[in-house]
Amino acid sequence: MAAGDVLISEVGPRDGLQSITAIMPLAAKKAWITAEAAAGVREIEVGSFVPAKLLPQLADTAEVVAHAKTIPGLAVAVLVPNARGAEAAIQAGADKLTLPLSVSETHSLRNLRRTHAQVIEEAKAIAAMIAALPPDRRPHFEGSLSTAFGCTLEGPIPDSQIARLAEELMAAGCDEVGLSDTTGYADPASVRRLIKLIRDTVGADALTGIHLHNTRGLGLANALAALDAGLTTLDSSLGGLGGCPFAPGASGNIVTEDLAFMLEAMGVRTGIDLDALFAVRTILAEALPGEPLYGFITAAGLPLGFKPADHH
Amino acid sequence: MAAGDVLISEVGPRDGLQSITAIMPLAAKKAWITAEAAAGVREIEVGSFVPAKLLPQLADTAEVVAHAKTIPGLAVAVLVPNARGAEAAIQAGADKLTLPLSVSETHSLRNLRRTHAQVIEEAKAIAAMIAALPPDRRPHFEGSLSTAFGCTLEGPIPDSQIARLAEELMAAGCDEVGLSDTTGYADPASVRRLIKLIRDTVGADALTGIHLHNTRGLGLANALAALDAGLTTLDSSLGGLGGCPFAPGASGNIVTEDLAFMLEAMGVRTGIDLDALFAVRTILAEALPGEPLYGFITAAGLPLGFKPADHH
Repeated sequence: MAAGDVLISEVGPRDGLQSITAIMPLAAKKAWITAEAAAGVREIEVGSFVPAKLLPQLADTAEVVAHAKTIPGLAVAVLVPNARGAEAAIQAGADKLTLPLSVSETHSLRNLRRTHAQVIEEAKAIAAMIAALPPDRRPHFEGSLSTAFGCTLEGPIPDSQIARLAEELMAAGCDEVGLSDTTGYADPASVRRLIKLIRDTVGADALTGIHLHNTRGLGLANALAALDAGLTTLDSSLGGLGGCPFAPGASGNIVTEDLAFMLEAMGVRTGIDLDALFAVRTILAEALPGEPLYGFITAAGLPLGFKPADHH
Repeated sequence: MAAGDVLISEVGPRDGLQSITAIMPLAAKKAWITAEAAAGVREIEVGSFVPAKLLPQLADTAEVVAHAKTIPGLAVAVLVPNARGAEAAIQAGADKLTLPLSVSETHSLRNLRRTHAQVIEEAKAIAAMIAALPPDRRPHFEGSLSTAFGCTLEGPIPDSQIARLAEELMAAGCDEVGLSDTTGYADPASVRRLIKLIRDTVGADALTGIHLHNTRGLGLANALAALDAGLTTLDSSLGGLGGCPFAPGASGNIVTEDLAFMLEAMGVRTGIDLDALFAVRTILAEALPGEPLYGFITAAGLPLGFKPADHH
């Protein structure tokens, strides 16, 4: 593994906060993002441009983006459910837009209230909007294949359907697709199989990232499988905050601290200072009293004589 | 992966029970072992032949072995700290003896109160004792390389020292060596590296199993790495009960339920009926009131449409 080749994309300010009822004050969000970027995290999904009445926790996303954009070197990502959200995201100056497409159509209807065809139309509209911008202002545009490892409503989704939707997203104008284990159903074998399937379908350059949950304890094993299969961007959430509110029992992103520890222990450079990262938990604990924070490495401490990747 | 090639070796009745203060009644131990064997677990480490005053929780190991030996097809494993324990284990009729050797000599002195040279002498005495038995009564004899991934007292142990001790254990007459992450320090890269080192040193046939802890959350990722590297026996503990009482903060074997779920989900046959396995937790919960049981899969439930390996 070449130096600095794995990007940990922090999704806590979006996926974490949207799944809890407490609303984190804007000042705390800013402090969180500032501190985590200072610890070396180079991409943060800071919010979602959805109607405030649906997710009041993320109503201040435009202000959060504006703040995050002031941090040098930080890629500021946001989730957009549709073209309208993308318009707001572009206006706010986000560097990366992620449009989720649930490969389970039942889940898509329940979650985004749209058929597959309707989501693909939104993707086309977003791509057109981006293409109309000056080249140096165009955000990166990812279509995320949600419930790719199975759906709590439909069960397993046929590989052929997932591959077709990946093709359609790319044809609609996405720069990239992503795999998302919305429901925590993935295992290392399905991670490897789907990565191969999608890369064989749309090309290796069009799939570099994966969004994993730890619902069934396999989060880091799945991350290892993804890494082995050549992916270079792994989503995670500080303190394991959050999950998908539309998939019952599916809470729990993989924990940023544990993921960063695993990678650094393996000699894979993340660019992250682990002790500085661990310290960011204090901001969450203070801003969200009573909210559980997860993670093994912060409970157990680094091994005696631990060397991060730079010192291997 | 060929069918039925992974053996999950349940170590809860030994490693789990030795690390908690409550003493499980003999009847509950018998019920646990009977039920877990009925669920398809083919090897169980049922106890340890140590002085009762050191580990009163395991004082009834001879009776537990006698019971376990009545279960057809079950390999009955025990831990033995020395030749005296091995003598008792042989008398009880155990199928497999595991002698731990801490590759950290500081840990060895603290844990077994013996130098490396003294442990090797015990191994020689045990091997001689076994060789004197009729061939059909000889138990399998494993030397376990404890603290192989680092020690809470010494930190990392040099590869050369670990390799030398593996050679010495084999030369002393062990049938096999095992790797043990006593302290929960392993990561997938160190797992792969040490497996290669030891197999290159003593031969692939002389290393087939690994004992992992989940102290820092990497337990299942490490199990995946071990599986990828060709190991076929993985230790785990039902409900994640237990750990090593001599390594502070090192509690927590990997959880049998989660490990079996991961393997079956991957299409790797374990021979275990997951629902029957999950039901065994009730025996632990009732016999050890107030004792925490761990595990993700039993909390989240199997994925909708889940197929075990036999139905892949």
